[in-house]
Amino acid sequence: MRSAFTEELDLISGQLVQMSRLSATALRRATTSLMDTDLALAQEVISDDQLIDALRRELDNRAIDVLARQQPVATDLRQMVTALRMSSDLERSGDLARHVAKLTRLRYPAHALTDELRPTFAEMATTAEAMILRAGDIIDSKDADGAGELIRADDTMDRLHREVFRVLLEPSSPQSAQVTVDATLLSRYYERYADHAVSIALRVVYLVTGVWHDEQLPGDDDRYPGSVPRES
Amino acid sequence: MRSAFTEELDLISGQLVQMSRLSATALRRATTSLMDTDLALAQEVISDDQLIDALRRELDNRAIDVLARQQPVATDLRQMVTALRMSSDLERSGDLARHVAKLTRLRYPAHALTDELRPTFAEMATTAEAMILRAGDIIDSKDADGAGELIRADDTMDRLHREVFRVLLEPSSPQSAQVTVDATLLSRYYERYADHAVSIALRVVYLVTGVWHDEQLPGDDDRYPGSVPRES
Repeated sequence: MRSAFTEELDLISGQLVQMSRLSATALRRATTSLMDTDLALAQEVISDDQLIDALRRELDNRAIDVLARQQPVATDLRQMVTALRMSSDLERSGDLARHVAKLTRLRYPAHALTDELRPTFAEMATTAEAMILRAGDIIDSKDADGAGELIRADDTMDRLHREVFRVLLEPSSPQSAQVTVDATLLSRYYERYADHAVSIALRVVYLVTGVWHDEQLPGDDDRYPGSVPRES
Repeated sequence: MRSAFTEELDLISGQLVQMSRLSATALRRATTSLMDTDLALAQEVISDDQLIDALRRELDNRAIDVLARQQPVATDLRQMVTALRMSSDLERSGDLARHVAKLTRLRYPAHALTDELRPTFAEMATTAEAMILRAGDIIDSKDADGAGELIRADDTMDRLHREVFRVLLEPSSPQSAQVTVDATLLSRYYERYADHAVSIALRVVYLVTGVWHDEQLPGDDDRYPGSVPRES
């Protein structure tokens, strides 16, 4: 028999899935605004971020209300605390999409990216968007195997992130300082966005298996190619 | 009469203060390793980050235990949820200090920063370190006025962040692509570190006043100087 607490957790899960869809949409639209240098679209992405933030606050309030009324046991509480942490990941991912749109707006009417960089960023964007949507599916299904796939997709982001730096540091075809700065920031935004998807997956694995896989935690800057020599 | 829950919250506050001290130490040592190109020190900072992570997990476990045993009311729960969010801010600030150390290690034996950039970064580091220590004080004292000061200190970080970009984009004295990339990443790490200190302050204000000051939330990339024209 399903407890009242389990039903409340399901409602919260649904809200997390909704946040993941909104975040994916934000990243897709922010990327379009970046590639098309579309100021109006960038502005919409920036405004719409408030919706994700509002959902996170609503989730916090719901969680507090449930905890006050239901008096759950420790295993239920661990799920609730994990849900709160996931909502932070999702809110932050939305913020990163907003950063992409803000950089587009700042640089308008110029293009932030050169033609050479655009394909790599396009692939980073579609990969990251797919990862956050998959994170939403995993929250819903509690599928620890699906979480494993998502964590491995992060290797694609690694490769693309390194490719951005390879292009930026290629001596034979230098970019302007502006493009170098912009591309570094943008690459970091997409990388951190994917990190949040992985973080969500790790939390699902923890809930399902009870094991926390620290060594797979994202945000490790060893991805930054350490073997690239400093230009003299 | 002090409730058992209040005493537990005080213990958790103490743990948050401890995390803020460890984070400040990490940033100070990471900055020293960056300025001195000190590989051994960088390696220590990287290893020591695990301690902050362990404290965060311990705090989570303590929070869950308290919630299961004490069955607190809604206002108490809001404080607990806020404490959990603060521990995330503090853990993440420690991660950012680790990123500074990792970049130092990656670039060794070369210097990541040019002489021209070092004073600005030194000031960013001392400002950010003071902000996280102040955040710890504020958690302890629940002093909403102190929180206001901290939020204003973020203006100093803004100014310094803009100064980094001014130097990087100055056409008459270009840096190498490597330095441009490294300085952009490092500036972002210090900026985000300070953002987490501000985030903690905003949470204390919320707990004390019940008002959430969204418009002061950090992470806004309007700090990135939009008036700097793109080099043609």
